[in-house]
Amino acid sequence: MISKLDLERAWSNTRPFVRNTPFTFSEYLSERWECEVFLKHEQKQGIGAFKIRGASNFLAHLSSKERERGLVTHSSGNHAQAVAFMARLSGIKAHIVMPKNSNSKKIENANKWGANIYLCEPSFEARLAMANELQAETGAFMIPPFDHEWIIEGQATVAMEMIRDQRLDYIIAPLGGGGLLSGSALASKYFSPSTKVIGAEPELAKDGYDGFIKGVRVDTYVPNTVADGLRTLVGEIPFEIIKHEVSDIWLASESRIIPWMYKIWEEEKTIIEPSCAVPFAAIDANRDHINGKRIGIIITGGNVDLSGLPPYSTEGL
Amino acid sequence: MISKLDLERAWSNTRPFVRNTPFTFSEYLSERWECEVFLKHEQKQGIGAFKIRGASNFLAHLSSKERERGLVTHSSGNHAQAVAFMARLSGIKAHIVMPKNSNSKKIENANKWGANIYLCEPSFEARLAMANELQAETGAFMIPPFDHEWIIEGQATVAMEMIRDQRLDYIIAPLGGGGLLSGSALASKYFSPSTKVIGAEPELAKDGYDGFIKGVRVDTYVPNTVADGLRTLVGEIPFEIIKHEVSDIWLASESRIIPWMYKIWEEEKTIIEPSCAVPFAAIDANRDHINGKRIGIIITGGNVDLSGLPPYSTEGL
Repeated sequence: MISKLDLERAWSNTRPFVRNTPFTFSEYLSERWECEVFLKHEQKQGIGAFKIRGASNFLAHLSSKERERGLVTHSSGNHAQAVAFMARLSGIKAHIVMPKNSNSKKIENANKWGANIYLCEPSFEARLAMANELQAETGAFMIPPFDHEWIIEGQATVAMEMIRDQRLDYIIAPLGGGGLLSGSALASKYFSPSTKVIGAEPELAKDGYDGFIKGVRVDTYVPNTVADGLRTLVGEIPFEIIKHEVSDIWLASESRIIPWMYKIWEEEKTIIEPSCAVPFAAIDANRDHINGKRIGIIITGGNVDLSGLPPYSTEGL
Repeated sequence: MISKLDLERAWSNTRPFVRNTPFTFSEYLSERWECEVFLKHEQKQGIGAFKIRGASNFLAHLSSKERERGLVTHSSGNHAQAVAFMARLSGIKAHIVMPKNSNSKKIENANKWGANIYLCEPSFEARLAMANELQAETGAFMIPPFDHEWIIEGQATVAMEMIRDQRLDYIIAPLGGGGLLSGSALASKYFSPSTKVIGAEPELAKDGYDGFIKGVRVDTYVPNTVADGLRTLVGEIPFEIIKHEVSDIWLASESRIIPWMYKIWEEEKTIIEPSCAVPFAAIDANRDHINGKRIGIIITGGNVDLSGLPPYSTEGL
């Protein structure tokens, strides 16, 4: 079980590598939803996404002997960049399995930091199988994308910063593998118990929602959403935390994800990924719950492939 | 002649309407140019551009009787939004002439704040003629886009904020009508004389550059640049200030403007207009001058028409 002390250690572990990103008031959203909305800008991390938090906390737990073996992981993108970046900083090798349908910008960035990239078929089984094979071959240390306590503790530092900055009634985070959402829930439990934590999931990747309703993790769903960062099942460890500590999971209509991405580009003048649009779409459909409240939304990353943007639309908003 | 006291008054006049926007360190640009680069994010103003500063300072000088007559102006976009916004706040009418080739997002926004929009042929003469006609007809007060002391004083508050925040060797601003650049030069003159102010102009709108070299304002040039906010000649009052107070004007190669816009989107995760890319392209071609220096770049606005983006490219960067 992850303790309050574990989160405090993650806070210290991550400080040298992590920016305390801006947490800004949104006039547009506050007016639209008749509440007070603050946005946490994790796209402003050096790697353009929050994943550096989990990766840097994970590395802090390894001895120098363990690090020397190198790192191996699998990721659709932002975790890959985080591991490649941390490996470069530490002067060690990184072997990274990425599904071949990953966003080309994310592959390019992971490459830029000198990682060995291995493309695989776009399924979780294929990712895991190839990563396990590489681990056996190279003897490198496996650093999983979300299903590990050290990763969850690192991701919890996003919500810890938000709670330090503002009194919040709600924190809303997208749900993919569940590292960020479960970490946020623990941060709220230990440091701001009156803050409710809500997950936001695309309706075409709703294994988390289904499992949350049933109380049992779903392990056979095939996610198929435009939000490329959320095409994964919730991990076992995150699921157990989410089941107990998260207040609710809200779904985003698939057809609203890209319109919300562009709406935020226009209104906030900031680049967010399709995955980050999921909370906005989900909240908009559940706005009655947040009337008059103070809410913090985590923008998880801004690594968009600008050469292959989906057609512009803000239809339905 | 604009005095130090005039700028101090503009500071007070604008505070209720203007955000002291973030002024952030750029790791990417600092590394690329081997200097320290700070970005002033005027795209984060409520209207998405710095023009609110001049418009709010102008209005502060009008008596309530003068305001009641309403406002008339001509603008390719951002000044139009600023006037429409200030008129709405003040509960008065705004009549705004915009060239019919203006960015559709800017027209839509000016409309949104309830201004009367009049589209004209895309020439400065046509803009001015229609605005004069409207003024005669309605009796409204003319609030020019840049060629007026009160506008220049308001725009000077951008550089005043930058100078308060950081010691700077250079401030670099785009040059269109010259309100921002002349205001920046005066701010430096009065509040930080060791800071050099440089203008950045597209090579296809280089009337300012030509005039600066000759020492005589150019009044017959036809600007034809992709940077829609800079398709205008330098005004008479700004030109006299620029001639004496600006250190240099650097040109941006036309073919580098859109690549730099996308580069900044990617690296800074922030939406900037084509006009804002001009300083980056101009500095990149003059990077030898800034080696080891501390420089502040003004990002002027982020009102981009996302439905009609130019093809993605970062070629040549």
